[in-house]
Amino acid sequence: MFEEIIRNVREKSPLVHSITNYVTVNDCANTILACGASPIMADDQNEVEEITSICNALVINIGTLNERTIKSMIKAGKKANELNHPVVLDPVGAGASSLRTKTTFELLENIRFAVIRGNVSEIKTVYKGSGTTKGVDADVSDAITEENLEEAITFTKELSRRTDAVIAISGAIDIVADKNKAYVIRNGNALMSRITGTGCMLASLIGAYCGANPDNILDAAAAASSVMGLAGELAFEKLRKVDGGTSTYRTFLIDYISKIDEKTLNGGIKIEIR
Amino acid sequence: MFEEIIRNVREKSPLVHSITNYVTVNDCANTILACGASPIMADDQNEVEEITSICNALVINIGTLNERTIKSMIKAGKKANELNHPVVLDPVGAGASSLRTKTTFELLENIRFAVIRGNVSEIKTVYKGSGTTKGVDADVSDAITEENLEEAITFTKELSRRTDAVIAISGAIDIVADKNKAYVIRNGNALMSRITGTGCMLASLIGAYCGANPDNILDAAAAASSVMGLAGELAFEKLRKVDGGTSTYRTFLIDYISKIDEKTLNGGIKIEIR
Amino acid sequence: MFEEIIRNVREKSPLVHSITNYVTVNDCANTILACGASPIMADDQNEVEEITSICNALVINIGTLNERTIKSMIKAGKKANELNHPVVLDPVGAGASSLRTKTTFELLENIRFAVIRGNVSEIKTVYKGSGTTKGVDADVSDAITEENLEEAITFTKELSRRTDAVIAISGAIDIVADKNKAYVIRNGNALMSRITGTGCMLASLIGAYCGANPDNILDAAAAASSVMGLAGELAFEKLRKVDGGTSTYRTFLIDYISKIDEKTLNGGIKIEIR
Repeated sequence: MFEEIIRNVREKSPLVHSITNYVTVNDCANTILACGASPIMADDQNEVEEITSICNALVINIGTLNERTIKSMIKAGKKANELNHPVVLDPVGAGASSLRTKTTFELLENIRFAVIRGNVSEIKTVYKGSGTTKGVDADVSDAITEENLEEAITFTKELSRRTDAVIAISGAIDIVADKNKAYVIRNGNALMSRITGTGCMLASLIGAYCGANPDNILDAAAAASSVMGLAGELAFEKLRKVDGGTSTYRTFLIDYISKIDEKTLNGGIKIEIR
Repeated sequence: MFEEIIRNVREKSPLVHSITNYVTVNDCANTILACGASPIMADDQNEVEEITSICNALVINIGTLNERTIKSMIKAGKKANELNHPVVLDPVGAGASSLRTKTTFELLENIRFAVIRGNVSEIKTVYKGSGTTKGVDADVSDAITEENLEEAITFTKELSRRTDAVIAISGAIDIVADKNKAYVIRNGNALMSRITGTGCMLASLIGAYCGANPDNILDAAAAASSVMGLAGELAFEKLRKVDGGTSTYRTFLIDYISKIDEKTLNGGIKIEIR
Repeated sequence: MFEEIIRNVREKSPLVHSITNYVTVNDCANTILACGASPIMADDQNEVEEITSICNALVINIGTLNERTIKSMIKAGKKANELNHPVVLDPVGAGASSLRTKTTFELLENIRFAVIRGNVSEIKTVYKGSGTTKGVDADVSDAITEENLEEAITFTKELSRRTDAVIAISGAIDIVADKNKAYVIRNGNALMSRITGTGCMLASLIGAYCGANPDNILDAAAAASSVMGLAGELAFEKLRKVDGGTSTYRTFLIDYISKIDEKTLNGGIKIEIR
């Protein structure tokens, strides 16, 4: 599954423009490189249009947004839309402050997104127009479980219909869906929430995959989510052998992003279509 | 020792708001996660009050301060004071430039700090009102030794009396004191000064520990300092087995922060009350 | 070779001021520490002159430049020139946007650089006054090979004559030259381009080496390039033994920067004078 998607990333080595937060930006750049793509970070208003023009995809992450960078996000997003480059939104902390919620909607009004990726609390904020996200982590009460999965799929498809974007919800169970079709992915490991940036890294990976597969956004986003989840599992298995902690886990996670190929993915992917 | 302090961090998983420098921010976020707490970094004036309101503690680190973020620090600090959230100050490089020294005093005038953590040169700058810090590292001439320890404890207690904050001085010998009581901690390893961010990481850890133990700030700060020091020792022991260098050491250091529990700490802590 | 250069870094432990991008800043700080020097990052206009005054070298990296930091770069650079501190320029992405190209030339007009370090596309942009850099990576068509090496050396020496700076081009084959003499260095490993920041880290290392060897800039820059290349080779050898990926490679790379001494360098350096 997703063989061509992955091969395209490696062969086309897309250039990914990111306007992102300064907390996890290094992990994002290394993730993009690990999968075979190439990153460029640029956030000044005077260059974002030009930079995004030479790229194949744009990732907007509002993790440490400020007035200056919000303007750059909008400028870059509009230019990427003009050029039909896929644009990925990671609404980090939407619901945690009115600035983040407001900015998320300002971006949605001005930019056509190919993919919106977030944890379930962030995506619910986008769905409802308001939220009570606890910081940058998902609320426990929001978590997608086997019990509420059906309902979650319905609302994800509905949000995709409304935004015309593929919606990717990350958590113990991932949902990646457009208005008609949902992938449910059960890869991953709980330790992924004990390091910073796994969400941001996934958004970057989705950006790289979409940049190499602009005509197959749903599968690109689902493939990236699967690779990230499987990398999280394999990293955990290796971690146990070396008796490491959370920082070694982060290293192994990016290692596996650089090592997973079509065959490894096929051997480990736990995916279902709904 | 400190069993309840550590258990509280794990059980309450406090949310820690940080306004910090972009050099070590990723290590700070991963340190907060490693100990069982949750980080959020936000520095825009339009959201810092709201963000700090949903948190349990605030850490202000002036490592790469600028006009924009200084305003945010003051806004966030005042709001955290209003809500009685513990606020930690890390006056990185105070004494190295007049901007840093001036900002440190501006913050001290406007915000009531629960803990002020720095190397001995930074803390001496706070004490004297001026300083000659060599960059972001402590001056050798300032170092706390067994010879000047008594004197150092006296000045630390005196500074605590003046600022009404717990003072945490990090170095080969750590002192963590309020006006009446000083913990002297002899954990740690010299290699900690060969990687960037051990001071910033400790300030973050203190923030997490204080967020979970707001009624016991002195012990929270001392426990965090002990854990950091012991992690530095255990990381060094492990490093020797794998013949690694400074970057592996950084990884192991954060690993141990994620692995040290009450029992490990009790087995390794070298602490004295003065 | 370069024994004294390396010994000076360790013995003088120069303080290096960096105004750099937020993507790789942590790696840059850790690289500076790894080689035995000391980093300070500061980019606010109100302190850069004072900070650079207490340092031994300044590194300017335009990786995520913006209007605010460009002003700080010029202020800091002029002050460092006044004090005769070596200043290193890393024109990241020059040629990829007109802002980056324009800023590179603005910096060159206002500041006297000791070393200009870039990939071949960035350096060609400096040479020609315009360029078509693909993002922050070198264009394949620009690559220095055994076939065009002679020509590349000639243009590097010519650019050194024009700028009065040592020119350091990094790639599969490195050239480090002043107007009269070129070092050709064949150390390194292809995996270095699969992690972010190896170029930035090298510019930081050059800054540290020049700070400790202000009277021997050419050899300092060549020694730093050799150490970085050899670290890349040794890291790759070790990586194969642990079956790691790109993130472990980054860790090992910095590890070796902290471990390579005069003897190791002499055993592995592949250098030629032209």
